[in-house]
Amino acid sequence: MSFGYHNRILRVNLTNGTIKEENPGEDFYRKHMGGRGIISYYLMKEVPKGADPLGPENLLIFAAGPLTGTPMIGSGRNSVGAKSPHTKGYGDSEAGGYFGAEMKRAGYDAIIIEGQSDKPVYLAIKDEEVQIKNATHLWGKLTNEVEKAIKEEMGDKNARVTQIGVAGENQVLIANVVNDLTHFYGRSGMGAVMGSKNLRAIGIKGTRLPKIKDQSTLTELNKVMGKNIKENMKGMTELGTTAIVNSLNAVGGLPTYNFKAGSFEGADKISGETMRDTYLIDNEGCYMCTVDCKRVVKIDDRYKVNPEFGGPEYETLGSLGSCCGIDDLQAVCKGNELCNALGLDTISAGVAISFAMECYENGILSKEDTDGIDIKFGNGQAMVEMIEKIANKDGFGELLALGCKPAAEKIGKGAMKYAMEVKGQEIPMHEPRLKQGLGIGYMVSPTGADHCHNLHDTVYTKMGPGLENMFPLGLNKPLPASQLDEEKSHMLKVGSLWRHFSNISELCQFVPWSPSQIEEAMKAVTGWQTSLLEMMQITERAVNLTRLFNLREGFELKDDYLPERFYEPLEGDNPLKGAIVDKKQADIALKAYYNLMGWDENGIPTKAKLAELDLLWAIN
Amino acid sequence: MSFGYHNRILRVNLTNGTIKEENPGEDFYRKHMGGRGIISYYLMKEVPKGADPLGPENLLIFAAGPLTGTPMIGSGRNSVGAKSPHTKGYGDSEAGGYFGAEMKRAGYDAIIIEGQSDKPVYLAIKDEEVQIKNATHLWGKLTNEVEKAIKEEMGDKNARVTQIGVAGENQVLIANVVNDLTHFYGRSGMGAVMGSKNLRAIGIKGTRLPKIKDQSTLTELNKVMGKNIKENMKGMTELGTTAIVNSLNAVGGLPTYNFKAGSFEGADKISGETMRDTYLIDNEGCYMCTVDCKRVVKIDDRYKVNPEFGGPEYETLGSLGSCCGIDDLQAVCKGNELCNALGLDTISAGVAISFAMECYENGILSKEDTDGIDIKFGNGQAMVEMIEKIANKDGFGELLALGCKPAAEKIGKGAMKYAMEVKGQEIPMHEPRLKQGLGIGYMVSPTGADHCHNLHDTVYTKMGPGLENMFPLGLNKPLPASQLDEEKSHMLKVGSLWRHFSNISELCQFVPWSPSQIEEAMKAVTGWQTSLLEMMQITERAVNLTRLFNLREGFELKDDYLPERFYEPLEGDNPLKGAIVDKKQADIALKAYYNLMGWDENGIPTKAKLAELDLLWAIN
Repeated sequence: MSFGYHNRILRVNLTNGTIKEENPGEDFYRKHMGGRGIISYYLMKEVPKGADPLGPENLLIFAAGPLTGTPMIGSGRNSVGAKSPHTKGYGDSEAGGYFGAEMKRAGYDAIIIEGQSDKPVYLAIKDEEVQIKNATHLWGKLTNEVEKAIKEEMGDKNARVTQIGVAGENQVLIANVVNDLTHFYGRSGMGAVMGSKNLRAIGIKGTRLPKIKDQSTLTELNKVMGKNIKENMKGMTELGTTAIVNSLNAVGGLPTYNFKAGSFEGADKISGETMRDTYLIDNEGCYMCTVDCKRVVKIDDRYKVNPEFGGPEYETLGSLGSCCGIDDLQAVCKGNELCNALGLDTISAGVAISFAMECYENGILSKEDTDGIDIKFGNGQAMVEMIEKIANKDGFGELLALGCKPAAEKIGKGAMKYAMEVKGQEIPMHEPRLKQGLGIGYMVSPTGADHCHNLHDTVYTKMGPGLENMFPLGLNKPLPASQLDEEKSHMLKVGSLWRHFSNISELCQFVPWSPSQIEEAMKAVTGWQTSLLEMMQITERAVNLTRLFNLREGFELKDDYLPERFYEPLEGDNPLKGAIVDKKQADIALKAYYNLMGWDENGIPTKAKLAELDLLWAIN
Repeated sequence: MSFGYHNRILRVNLTNGTIKEENPGEDFYRKHMGGRGIISYYLMKEVPKGADPLGPENLLIFAAGPLTGTPMIGSGRNSVGAKSPHTKGYGDSEAGGYFGAEMKRAGYDAIIIEGQSDKPVYLAIKDEEVQIKNATHLWGKLTNEVEKAIKEEMGDKNARVTQIGVAGENQVLIANVVNDLTHFYGRSGMGAVMGSKNLRAIGIKGTRLPKIKDQSTLTELNKVMGKNIKENMKGMTELGTTAIVNSLNAVGGLPTYNFKAGSFEGADKISGETMRDTYLIDNEGCYMCTVDCKRVVKIDDRYKVNPEFGGPEYETLGSLGSCCGIDDLQAVCKGNELCNALGLDTISAGVAISFAMECYENGILSKEDTDGIDIKFGNGQAMVEMIEKIANKDGFGELLALGCKPAAEKIGKGAMKYAMEVKGQEIPMHEPRLKQGLGIGYMVSPTGADHCHNLHDTVYTKMGPGLENMFPLGLNKPLPASQLDEEKSHMLKVGSLWRHFSNISELCQFVPWSPSQIEEAMKAVTGWQTSLLEMMQITERAVNLTRLFNLREGFELKDDYLPERFYEPLEGDNPLKGAIVDKKQADIALKAYYNLMGWDENGIPTKAKLAELDLLWAIN
C-alpha cells in the first residue's frame, strides 16, 4: 500500500449499529486520492438517485487526503460530504483544525456514516475501538459543552471532536459541522445531514502517524516554508483573513447591503485592524501550521463574547457585517460566537439575514412576519436575535433556516430578486463585478456559490510571484480582473481546478506552497511517481463526478446562473461604481469553460471526457 | 535568458544574401520551446496562405530543442520544417546524428532559410562566421562526395554536414534531408524544399556547449540511464529497430504486398537477425548516445553496398522489403544505400514502388508505362532501378517522384485504391488493423501518415513498467491494441502528444527516459520551474498550430481519412487474418479525439482552446 494512506475506511451504519472496515486498495487512492475525490466517488456510487438528503439513504463522509496529518505545514485540513439538503445536489465542505489529522492517526483515511440512528448518539473512536454511544444528554447543548463532555467521557483531554450544534440537530439547512470548536465545515448544510442521522458528534483519538516515503524531502520543504512564513506572512498571522475588509472596501469589492453595493461606509469599524486594536486577544491555527490565521476575540461590554468560540474571519465580518449594513463590531463578534456555539454557517446565515433585511426595507416583509423584530439594514441586535431564531427554528427563524432561496419562494412577492444565491447556496463575500471570472466560477461550482474552489481574478492581474508559480499549471499570462471571455475561462479552469485539488490533497490554500512544491510533497509523502498533470486529472475526475451527481439529481444548464443583481450596476462610493457582469460575455465565458472542461454546450461531460477520466461507470 | 538556449536564431535569405540574427527572448522559448514548436510558430506566422512550397515564400527551418546538444543521453535530435510540397500542408521531420548538436554548439537554436538562391549554394557556418558559398561543383554528386568536399573546403574534418541529395536537387517530392550521411529527416519532402532553394548543404562547426542550469542532476540521470542501457538494452544495440521484422510478422503486423497482408513468407530472410548474421559489419549512433541502434552493412556480392551509407532500419526493411514483397536482403540493402546516397525517403520510396507494383499486377500499369521494367511484387532489381529513376526523375520515375497519391491521380483507372497514404504522405510500416489507435493517429497527424508522433497501441496492452511510467501523464489503464473507442482516443491523445513532445524537446524516443525523468531533465537544463503539464501544454500549442496551418491551407474534415484498404480484411497467414478497422468505431474514436483535443466536430480548434494556448493571434 502507498505511503500517506492507511488503506482503511471506517463504515458505520447508524440504523443497525454495524461497524465495518474497508480496504479499497491503491488503485482507488490513485484515482480518487482524498477529500472531495473520495466523497464524490462514494456519493455517486452509493447514494441512490433522488435520495432524501435528510433520510437514511444519504451518506455522511468524513474524508482526509494523503497529506492530512502528515508533518507538512498546512496539512490540517479535512472534508465532509453528503448529498446536500441545502442545494439538493452534491455537497461537501472543508475545515481545518485537528480532527482530520487525528482521524488519520486513528488509522482511517475516511469515515462513512450510513443510515439513521433512532436516538441521539455520538461515535467514540480510539484507533480500532469504535463505539456508538448515547448522546441524549448532549442534545440541545452548546458546542463547547459537548466538546468538554465528550473529552471527559472518552477519558482523554487530547481527543478531538467534530460535532454539530443545535442548528444541526434541528436540521437547519444552513447548519455547519464544527471541528475543535473553532474550525468549520461551513457550506452545503452538512450539519443538517449529521443532525438527520441523530449523530451529534465524533470523538477521536489515534496513536499512529501516517507513514511517509521520503521524510527528508518533506523536512526540507517545511524548512523553506517555515522561513517563508516567518519572513513574509506576518500580516496573515497578525490579521488573518480580516485584513481584506479594508482593502476590498477600497476597490469596491466588499459586499454591502445584500450585494447592492461594493463598499460600506462603516467598513473600517468592522475591519481586521479595528478588531486587532479592540477585542482580539489571541490568534490560533491548525495542525502543523505556524501561520495561525484564526482569530480569538473576547468582549465583555454591550455584548459578552466567549473566546472559546474564536473570532470572526473575513467572510463573517462581511456576511454579518457589511452585507447586513452593520458596523457594530461587538454585534458581529456576538453573531459569530452564536453561529459557532449553535452550529450555523456564518456566510449563509448572514446572507439569509441580509436577504430578509432587504425584503423588509422594500416592504415585502413587515414586523408581523419577523416576530416584531425591526430587521432593517444596520440593526446589529436584530441580526444577533435572528441567528438564535434560525438555529432554533423559532418563529421567523424557521423560514430563514431554509436559506434565502426557499425562503424567497415561500415569501413570494418578488422576494426572489433579493435572494443572493446559486443553486440555493448563499453567495460568499466575493463580488463578481470585481472578480469577473469568479462569477462564472459561482455558476459552475458543484456546491453552488463557493469562493474556495474558485478563481480569485485579482491575484493574476499582473506578472509576479503568484503567476510565475502557476506556470507549471499552464497559466502564464496575466489578465485584468474585469476581463470576461475565453481567456478568462481558461484561467478559471486552471485556477479553480487547482483549488479543487486542495480539497482533495487536503492542504490549506493559505499556506503559500507553489504547485511544484506540492508536487514534490505528494511524491515525498506517497512514494508515487506522480505529476501535476496526474494531480489535475484526479481533480478533473472528482469535479466531473460532482457534475454527474448534480445532473443525475436533475440539475440542468439553467441551474448554472448568477443572481440578476450582478448584471446590474454596482452601487457605493467606490472605484467600481456602475460595474456590471456583462450577460453576453458571461455566456461566452460559461460556454468556453464547458468547452475547456470537455463538457458539451449544455454543460454535460462528453463520453470522451468520461472515458479519459475512467468514469464511464458513472453514466451506466 | 534561460539555460539550454542561446537566444539566437540565424536567418539567412538566399534571394538577397542577407544574414541576420534574431533574439526572440525567453517568453518565446517557454511557449514554443524547440523543434516542432519553433517550426510551427514561424510557418504559421511568416509563410503566407497558399504559398508555393517550392517557391521563395516558403521557409526552411532547422530547429533544435532545449535538450539538443546537452550532455543528456539521447539529445542528438533536431528537426527541419517547411510547408510540405508533398502534403501541401504543415511539414517537418526529425533526425538524429550530430548536426543538431553542432548547430547548438555554433550558438544557434534554429536556422531559418528564406528565399531562393539563383544558383547552387551551401552554407558554411563557424560560430558567428556565416558564409553563403558556391555549390555548383557539388550539384549532382552523391551525398558522401558532398560531405567530404564540404569538410575539406571548411578545413575541418569535424564539421557536421546536413544536405540534400540528387533527389532533393530535382525537387522530388519524397526527397529527404541527410545529417552526417546516415541520419535522415525523411518525411514530408523537406529535401525538395531545400532543393527549390538551391541549397545543397549546410556545413557547421561550433565551439560552445549550451549552458546547463543544474549539471549534477543531469549527470545523475545519465548515470542511471547509462546503467539501464547497458543492462537492459542489449537487444536494441544488437539489432536496432530491425528486431521487429520477425516479431511483427508473427502477430500479423508486418506490412506486406502494399498493405494487403500483415505477414510475409519471406520475412525471416529480410529480418534483423538475418542481417546481423550476414551483412552487418557495425552499428553506430548519435550524439550523446550509447545505444547505437543504427546499422552499418557492407555487401560485395550480387550487389555492392558501401558501408559509408549505413544500413536499413526496420522501416526500410519493411518498405523496400515486405511491402514490395521482396525477400532479397541484398537488394533491400542496395535500395537503402541508393536512397541514402541520392536523398530519398525510404518509406515513401518503398510505398510508392509497392503502389506501382500493385497497379502493375492489376493491369493498371504495364511495361510500356514502366520503361520496360517488370515491376511486379518481389522483383528486387526492379525496386533498385526504380529508386534511381525516382531520384533522377527519369522516365516512370518522374511519376513516382510525386509520391503515390499524385501518381495515382495521374494514372487514374482506379489506381487510387492502391495509394497507401494519408494527406499524400505514404503510410509507414505500422499496421492500423493491428494498432487500432495508431490508425486514428494517421488520420489526424498534421504531416499525414506518421508513426513517430503516434500511439503504438501494442505497448500499452497490459500493466507494466511502460504503462506505470505513463501514470504521470494521466494514462493509467491498459487497453487491448484492438480496442477502438473513446478510451482509445484518450490513449491516443496522451500517447501521441507525448511523442510530439519528443519532437519539441528533441530527445530521442528510443532512449527509455520516463516522462518524470524528462521533466527532471528539462528543469535541470533550463532552470525553469516547469512541469509535465506545462510541457504537454507547449505540445498542444504546437499541435494546434500545425492544425491551424493545415486548415488555413484548405484541409478539411474529409482530409482526416484512412485508405479504404484498412477497412477491408487483412490477408496473410497470421493470427490477425481477417482483421479490419471498423469504420463506425473509427468515426467514434476520431470524434472523441477531436473532443479531447478541444476541437469541434469538424476538427477545428475551438476559440476557447486557442485562448487556453494563447494562440488567438493565429486565427486573426
